[in-house]
Amino acid sequence: MTKPDRSYPSETDGVLRKDLSGFFEGDNMKHISITTDFGSSVGSMRGVIWNIAPNAMISDITSAIPPQDINYATWYLDHEVWYFPPGSIHIVVVDPGVGTARRPIVAKIGEHYFVGPDNGVFSKLYQRAEKNGWEIRIFHTNKPKYWWELESNIFHGRDIFSPVAAHLAAGVPVEELGEEIHDEIRIPVPEADFTVSGAQGKVILIYPHLGNITTNFYRKDLPKDFDASKAKLKIGDRTISSIRQTFGEAPEGELIALYGTAGYIIIAVVNGNANDLLKPKIGDKVELIY
Amino acid sequence: MTKPDRSYPSETDGVLRKDLSGFFEGDNMKHISITTDFGSSVGSMRGVIWNIAPNAMISDITSAIPPQDINYATWYLDHEVWYFPPGSIHIVVVDPGVGTARRPIVAKIGEHYFVGPDNGVFSKLYQRAEKNGWEIRIFHTNKPKYWWELESNIFHGRDIFSPVAAHLAAGVPVEELGEEIHDEIRIPVPEADFTVSGAQGKVILIYPHLGNITTNFYRKDLPKDFDASKAKLKIGDRTISSIRQTFGEAPEGELIALYGTAGYIIIAVVNGNANDLLKPKIGDKVELIY
Amino acid sequence: MTKPDRSYPSETDGVLRKDLSGFFEGDNMKHISITTDFGSSVGSMRGVIWNIAPNAMISDITSAIPPQDINYATWYLDHEVWYFPPGSIHIVVVDPGVGTARRPIVAKIGEHYFVGPDNGVFSKLYQRAEKNGWEIRIFHTNKPKYWWELESNIFHGRDIFSPVAAHLAAGVPVEELGEEIHDEIRIPVPEADFTVSGAQGKVILIYPHLGNITTNFYRKDLPKDFDASKAKLKIGDRTISSIRQTFGEAPEGELIALYGTAGYIIIAVVNGNANDLLKPKIGDKVELIY
Repeated sequence: MTKPDRSYPSETDGVLRKDLSGFFEGDNMKHISITTDFGSSVGSMRGVIWNIAPNAMISDITSAIPPQDINYATWYLDHEVWYFPPGSIHIVVVDPGVGTARRPIVAKIGEHYFVGPDNGVFSKLYQRAEKNGWEIRIFHTNKPKYWWELESNIFHGRDIFSPVAAHLAAGVPVEELGEEIHDEIRIPVPEADFTVSGAQGKVILIYPHLGNITTNFYRKDLPKDFDASKAKLKIGDRTISSIRQTFGEAPEGELIALYGTAGYIIIAVVNGNANDLLKPKIGDKVELIY
Repeated sequence: MTKPDRSYPSETDGVLRKDLSGFFEGDNMKHISITTDFGSSVGSMRGVIWNIAPNAMISDITSAIPPQDINYATWYLDHEVWYFPPGSIHIVVVDPGVGTARRPIVAKIGEHYFVGPDNGVFSKLYQRAEKNGWEIRIFHTNKPKYWWELESNIFHGRDIFSPVAAHLAAGVPVEELGEEIHDEIRIPVPEADFTVSGAQGKVILIYPHLGNITTNFYRKDLPKDFDASKAKLKIGDRTISSIRQTFGEAPEGELIALYGTAGYIIIAVVNGNANDLLKPKIGDKVELIY
Repeated sequence: MTKPDRSYPSETDGVLRKDLSGFFEGDNMKHISITTDFGSSVGSMRGVIWNIAPNAMISDITSAIPPQDINYATWYLDHEVWYFPPGSIHIVVVDPGVGTARRPIVAKIGEHYFVGPDNGVFSKLYQRAEKNGWEIRIFHTNKPKYWWELESNIFHGRDIFSPVAAHLAAGVPVEELGEEIHDEIRIPVPEADFTVSGAQGKVILIYPHLGNITTNFYRKDLPKDFDASKAKLKIGDRTISSIRQTFGEAPEGELIALYGTAGYIIIAVVNGNANDLLKPKIGDKVELIY
């Protein structure tokens, strides 16, 4: 398998982490993450997992995906999942079509496993893998022997995705979990459009609590001669001067643009809340001028 | 001990899970769940547990029980706890009488352990056990040597229930934790009243985030000739036609009834919020006509 | 190292816990807590930790520190962290100066480790250590080889504090993580001012969900002849008679003062919400008359 170019571990600390690499062979896949739109963590999913993989270390990524918002979820996942160890298994339950003909799937993307509905929620992850040359394999998890007994037909997160993830953690090979497919559903995950003098992009995520707004201007896609101090970012009728490295470069209360935590340019208010100020919507246009 | 008829593992996957059964002997009780009305997880409870049982795997079930709502809690627990592995220990802190004479107890119900106040919060669990023929044993955990030092008298969740649960996880036999009692407190957990032509029931749970409304019409209690496609469900001045298997059978925005995740009939809006639409109260009457 | 006088384990259960003491040698520091002002848990921090310390048991303390409120955070930490096992590592991300010259630090305080910004957020912990005679050592974690690769400069919680905490959990000695410093930042953590007839104090914490209000009247600082039944507590224009042991001593709805869960006197409404009633601010004056 092609090793994902995650850019980390960096050279400086590669030695430290290499010492632990044995852990990830064999007793490999025991870290499980959960991403949902349920508003809060659901204990029964962890219960089901622990019946099958009693030693699984489980972490929520978030329970706060806006209800049934596949578009938001796919970007959010891309901001979070790659920080988990190779071999991690990620359960995703943003599933408006639960109980319909939409397929439950397991996607192996690079060194990570994803279990959830085949509704496009993994689209941004497929895109990243293709850009980086990581292997993608997708399986329709259609074997009830790896499911929990279905008490209803509306909670595949607990009854299908959790037990399938747990069997994977317990050592069942991914190929065993179902038939490989090649016609997975994808939704558009638009990348910013770069020209000589600027770029057209979109708002892709808004963090409600701290109020930071994420655009799809990806740092590594910027022109080589990009001068952050001279660039401007337009959103609505506001124009923000320069792309900063950190909040500390501007006074409290100022609306700024800066490199966000996942490598995308974000819009924020120093010690304040840009969402409250600008009230943007997901998909709103943003423009970068350089 | 009578094995709970949990209906799972189902026959199809029984083999898979049987391979892991050794895990649950001896090194048995290491999964701990926490259910509270605190609004968010409380770190110090986990800290106390890990002092005594450093390897315990701990999961919240929920922190969002409505404050001091024992009735809501007992139904909620019944929806979640049975999905955990045999030997799991469940801490419950919905405790309006904390610091009064109400007893702290450990209840062994089937293969699960429950630690919390003797205020009726386990009533639905006792009822289910009795219907299924599971063994129930209840102990008054009155030995301070299994408690944390009480810094105040108002947080038994941290100072009594967590350390008692942790000692259980660390291998202390349940009989050692206190005196067995037989006069535990119970609150009414009304079951629906079934007749030849229909049933009278109640709203028992409302999920605030997604807005689904749970009734106490339990699927397995329905008449054998029950025809879901012809049944009607009345709530307030609304009548809902047919009990569906899944959201996908109705168009977006429609108010529907369907089999919920725990086997009870629920009321929901397809890709919407039934609670916002109907604004029911817990205990409101619902009627099933068939 | 001076053993913290945590007052627990109490004599009665000392024997029980002593049996487990081997766990905390060697394979010592594997419990990690996380305290932030992010509003909800951030999965990528756990992912980073598990890359470096795959077996770390991680618990949130809270994600609900009011945004960038160092003062609130330092009191909150003091209410929670000491309940964790000796050797625990506590990550704290309340970090208004992220990306500026403020230093990332590791503080060893008694038997606990704290990783976070040098902005005063550990001040109450330093104060408690000094009162109790616990050792304090503080290190500037300035070695990028123990960091994650910085994709931006604004999320040190994920990119510096989490990997440093994880390396500590994986066995890197604290002295190796950076240069020892002695000029750490401290903010005032005012203790109540006791006189013969009473004490002047402040509101230090307000729990939004249950609405309890915590003062800085610490039980162990009260005069030896303090008579809780005769004392009065004034807040705003309200005077509360007697300091109670438990909620059960007063009727539902009554505004009462009682010993809170961390040893401080708190103000609460029996089965109600004192915050909604009094709407105090952090720092408001409270007076104790005895």
